[in-house]
Amino acid sequence: MAPRCPGLSRFLRSGETPWATLPAVNARHILIELHGCPADHLNDADAIQHAMSTAAVAAGATVIATNFHRFSPLGVSGVVLIAESHLTIHTWPERGYAAVDVFTCGASVDPWQAYTSLKAALGAASGEAVEMTRGERPVVSRRVSDAAGS
Amino acid sequence: MAPRCPGLSRFLRSGETPWATLPAVNARHILIELHGCPADHLNDADAIQHAMSTAAVAAGATVIATNFHRFSPLGVSGVVLIAESHLTIHTWPERGYAAVDVFTCGASVDPWQAYTSLKAALGAASGEAVEMTRGERPVVSRRVSDAAGS
Repeated sequence: MAPRCPGLSRFLRSGETPWATLPAVNARHILIELHGCPADHLNDADAIQHAMSTAAVAAGATVIATNFHRFSPLGVSGVVLIAESHLTIHTWPERGYAAVDVFTCGASVDPWQAYTSLKAALGAASGEAVEMTRGERPVVSRRVSDAAGS
Repeated sequence: MAPRCPGLSRFLRSGETPWATLPAVNARHILIELHGCPADHLNDADAIQHAMSTAAVAAGATVIATNFHRFSPLGVSGVVLIAESHLTIHTWPERGYAAVDVFTCGASVDPWQAYTSLKAALGAASGEAVEMTRGERPVVSRRVSDAAGS
């Protein structure tokens, strides 16, 4: 099994430093709303699984498991568990809407790369995203709102 | 396969109403920070899987898949996919900290019941939670901060 948050695990294995001086969790969580996606993109579980795994790799993450489901009559839900936490997606093809989460820990990944990758892969006309810092009182730490191609 | 968001799927099957009058997505996402949890609770993947599935049922959700992993040397990540979206957890036993997400759609579930169930199951000394409305520009719609037993 891959280590969780590689930087932290290496640190823990050294056994030389007391807990009190552990590095920060450094967990970042981006809540993403994608609108104006073609309905057929949002109802294709295989294509979405591929897009989500590609997005995870784009962020620099290590994929450890995936699980995707297509609902009847419409919609896909899925998760990509990564060594650095997770990506999830839920789609409403009839609305052209997808709700995506990218949750990462550690300094070696950039969750915003996953946002850019997935927005393009799903052909979203627009994206809204807000970054929340985890590991402490949740706060908004970054917000973007942009149209296709921006 | 279970329908996604049962209320919406029933509506879609009726075939009688144009998309423009579809009911709202009604997606609710609670970001939960649990602190002061016993480390052994947070490193036991089987117990956490049970607690998360129990929390999903407490919310009134239908579980469709679970996937949990224990990291070396410490930490558990896992997901419960539900017909109404998902629950995820990532734990840092060395900190007594767990990051939990409960994302639901549809009016038949109450994600706050999952929060209450899981906070008790993991023995958290304190919990912070913030509810975000999904399906539109993300906004904070409720925030709580409470100590054990409250």
